[in-house]
Amino acid sequence: MERVFHLNLDDVLRLVRAALESGDQTQAVALIQALRPADQADVFSELADQEQASLLPNLAPEDSADILEELEDEEAVELAEALSDADLARIVNEMEPDEAADLLGDLPDARAEAILNSMEDSEEVRPLLMHADESAGGLMTTDFLVLRPRMRVSEALMAIRQLAPKDSAETLYNLYVVDTAGILRGVVSLYQLLQADPAARVGDVMEADVLSARADEDREVAAGLMTRYDLLSLPVVDSTNRLLGIITHDDFVDIVEEETTEDIQMMGGSAPLDGPYLDIPVVRVARKRVGWLMLLFITGTLTGTVMRWFADDLEAVVALAFFIPLLIGTGGNAGSQTTATIIRSIAVGDVRWRDGLAVLWHELRIGILLGAAMALFGFVRAILWGTGYDVGFAVAASLLVVVTWAVTVGSLLPLLATKLRFDPAMVSGPLMSTLVDATGLLIYLSVAKLMLSL
Amino acid sequence: MERVFHLNLDDVLRLVRAALESGDQTQAVALIQALRPADQADVFSELADQEQASLLPNLAPEDSADILEELEDEEAVELAEALSDADLARIVNEMEPDEAADLLGDLPDARAEAILNSMEDSEEVRPLLMHADESAGGLMTTDFLVLRPRMRVSEALMAIRQLAPKDSAETLYNLYVVDTAGILRGVVSLYQLLQADPAARVGDVMEADVLSARADEDREVAAGLMTRYDLLSLPVVDSTNRLLGIITHDDFVDIVEEETTEDIQMMGGSAPLDGPYLDIPVVRVARKRVGWLMLLFITGTLTGTVMRWFADDLEAVVALAFFIPLLIGTGGNAGSQTTATIIRSIAVGDVRWRDGLAVLWHELRIGILLGAAMALFGFVRAILWGTGYDVGFAVAASLLVVVTWAVTVGSLLPLLATKLRFDPAMVSGPLMSTLVDATGLLIYLSVAKLMLSL
Repeated sequence: MERVFHLNLDDVLRLVRAALESGDQTQAVALIQALRPADQADVFSELADQEQASLLPNLAPEDSADILEELEDEEAVELAEALSDADLARIVNEMEPDEAADLLGDLPDARAEAILNSMEDSEEVRPLLMHADESAGGLMTTDFLVLRPRMRVSEALMAIRQLAPKDSAETLYNLYVVDTAGILRGVVSLYQLLQADPAARVGDVMEADVLSARADEDREVAAGLMTRYDLLSLPVVDSTNRLLGIITHDDFVDIVEEETTEDIQMMGGSAPLDGPYLDIPVVRVARKRVGWLMLLFITGTLTGTVMRWFADDLEAVVALAFFIPLLIGTGGNAGSQTTATIIRSIAVGDVRWRDGLAVLWHELRIGILLGAAMALFGFVRAILWGTGYDVGFAVAASLLVVVTWAVTVGSLLPLLATKLRFDPAMVSGPLMSTLVDATGLLIYLSVAKLMLSL
Repeated sequence: MERVFHLNLDDVLRLVRAALESGDQTQAVALIQALRPADQADVFSELADQEQASLLPNLAPEDSADILEELEDEEAVELAEALSDADLARIVNEMEPDEAADLLGDLPDARAEAILNSMEDSEEVRPLLMHADESAGGLMTTDFLVLRPRMRVSEALMAIRQLAPKDSAETLYNLYVVDTAGILRGVVSLYQLLQADPAARVGDVMEADVLSARADEDREVAAGLMTRYDLLSLPVVDSTNRLLGIITHDDFVDIVEEETTEDIQMMGGSAPLDGPYLDIPVVRVARKRVGWLMLLFITGTLTGTVMRWFADDLEAVVALAFFIPLLIGTGGNAGSQTTATIIRSIAVGDVRWRDGLAVLWHELRIGILLGAAMALFGFVRAILWGTGYDVGFAVAASLLVVVTWAVTVGSLLPLLATKLRFDPAMVSGPLMSTLVDATGLLIYLSVAKLMLSL
């Protein structure tokens, strides 16, 4: 049995750099090839661009392929652009078809065509280039083994032993069964085959009730099915139920991670970044954020409009102004809490558009409870601050109304977004706060004007 | 080949209810048993508590076990409490050991002990009760097959055919190899066994370099390893590397989903909910939110303090007040964008505490770019609004400083949280905005006072 040694990535990186500096490419290659793909990619992306481009053609094509698969899309494209057509074609040839299609799709058309033409077998990759990145078809691999219903179990096992695509064990946990027209008829797990009578027919062992995704469906739908039913892989079919490809476990993990990133960035009010944070140029990050920031600024100017309406009242009782940031801030916070809850409930399938009224009734009561608590709390705080009882009462009453209002709006916005087919994460956080700012201000100043008889 | 019919869940639910109303339990049972576990649980949780408790003992114990596993924790406990000890023991007996331990851990100690005593084989569940819910040990199953290095491949395959625990195919994609002391020595996939020479020794076919998690490590560490290396299962060991259990794919999917929920709720400034949204009583949701809201309110009162310092200036130039919500709102938005990006970069491992200076330098430049853009934009907006040039310039200069400051703070807060071992998601959104509100106000009013020579 081999002994196992543990080095952390920084040690490996230091050794690789030392080897490269002393001109010992062989040593650097050996170090990198000893790592797991995800770690290879990490070490690799820490190297200078020139070091990467000179090192990659010296690695075995399978290792280079693994690294290109594991790198962030942007980094992979940069690296691909620095390689010769021949080197790149040799590496792409070893990539999983779905990953190869992703990379080629990000290259200029002429370059992609040149690479496809120099590849040994491009026929697995070409059809994948038609599918949108965000669709189920854009995720699937076309490199897999299918079984026929009339095959015997022993023949199926033999086929798996001899014909299964190398390096793609992840397509073999579930084997899909198709008829002569390529129509998906069933699924059987490797384990079921192993336990079945070798003389039985695959068609009698398989499960005919097999879940699948349409190639043109959003990849989130596919990921949702895999999460809900704990599936290790999911077949992708066309509109006639013909089997086109398989989404495997590793792709599933990638989607879940990317979709979570997208949601969290969107909740923060920014377009998602497409690479490792520190590698993305400052100007590009700024560009991703500035549009949203300006949109929110324009919406935010409504607050100024509202304040102008009440200019005289604010001049009369300056103490009212002191509570403005606090009041609208509390409204925004109460709304954000609600929005985050509802967005998540929509994502996990607890809540749908038609639950709107139930959600509204639920949150209205929560809002009144929270509003009452904050009103009491705010009143005490105002009095302790030495504010007069009149302004204190106005602040308390406003808190009750503003919090209830913010919670209600916060619950409806994500549902409305879903109905209008936006991503509900888009309306959370910043957009919510900005909308509640102006309306909260209007509520506060109106209530105050009324209660203080201004 | 069997025909497949598709009904949506609402149809099934209607049929089940109709069957129950007409007293036809057999029909209701047949309908539910025809569904997949996740769907069974969905239909089930829509039924009234009493219907659930009367129906469950009539289902096959394996189906009841599936349903209890798929239900949200809170719902499962409620249902368990309505069942007799004998019924519950029979169902828990069929649950996966890790799920059984979770459920028993949520029941009162005396009840859990009674159930364990009435179970056929409780020895797989008992040791799991020691592990914390949030630890790797709390996720693992103890119901799995191990191989020995000296076994022949043919013997291993025979053992898998004959001894493998029924209903747990997910523990069989990767088989773990232990020595006579139970120490983890390697891993081999079912597919590798199938392709290997039947006469070979498992020790020669397996990979000795096997990743594992310590039972007392946080479950997020385990999930992180599984995501990074695309693992279908992960062995859990004690401090001497003795194999204690396996975390399987379905548990992994559950953690990822729960941890995402936790992050998103926390970013919204609320403690995570522990059940399906609409089922949680209003008062409990309000209690989860009110603490955070009050804390933010107290922090928010700082804005009032700042405004008091500048009361005379605000009275002199009321137009200054009109821009307050807009300015602090923009600061909060710019900060939220940054925080969301950094939180996610920390989560996926792009950024660590020691990258602090690099992050700061990155965001400082982004902040200045964004601040300059917003200053220009804000100035134009102020002039179009008919505000004087002097106030317009003060607003523009403040926007530059406030946005730069908010972006800088927004980048450092999540890193600081990580360093202090808080969840970075906690400091995002509401907390960020509230902190930037007071400081942004201070910056704005100071800049304005200076520029307008008040």
